[in-house]
Amino acid sequence: MIAQTPQPPYYAVIFTSIRTAVDNGYGQTADRMVELAAQQPGFLVVESARNEIGITVSYWVSLEAIQHWRQHAEHTLAREQGRREWYYAFKTRICKVERDYLFENQ
Amino acid sequence: MIAQTPQPPYYAVIFTSIRTAVDNGYGQTADRMVELAAQQPGFLVVESARNEIGITVSYWVSLEAIQHWRQHAEHTLAREQGRREWYYAFKTRICKVERDYLFENQ
Repeated sequence: MIAQTPQPPYYAVIFTSIRTAVDNGYGQTADRMVELAAQQPGFLVVESARNEIGITVSYWVSLEAIQHWRQHAEHTLAREQGRREWYYAFKTRICKVERDYLFENQ
Repeated sequence: MIAQTPQPPYYAVIFTSIRTAVDNGYGQTADRMVELAAQQPGFLVVESARNEIGITVSYWVSLEAIQHWRQHAEHTLAREQGRREWYYAFKTRICKVERDYLFENQ
């Protein structure tokens, strides 16, 4: 269902990307990054969708938690391989979630 | 390509949704909302992807621009039909984009 997050404020990393045709372990690494992110302090949840572009949003308790994950060695290696092989382009946006609204059909 | 946005700060609305099987004009209305949003003051750009869940992120210059669009009459009607027919659940998150990073393969 819809990813559950606490009351704002919390933080979001919006990762928008355009893939190359290269596989070379992409799926495995993407799964591993989700698994590894989930083990980091301050991680909340992640959600993804892809058609022409991919949008992955991960949610975190603080900017410090995002910075810590950014510096993780295995994540850094994956990002470098991403630049070399998997992506034509990507943009990472670091955001503070100020308000949110949930709708669930009863 | 990747949606272009100005130097931060700017604002993002992350709309995460789970669709019902009901069509009833969904695609037309979704296209119309993108067209209409693009005409609003303070609109920057929008990007979307959908698999099991849909993620649409629209970018805006200010919270006031987001609030203005939220109150637009045709948008309000579309949101009400969305609640009745098109979505099991959705979550809207209003965010301030504090930093961003672009990668483009040369």
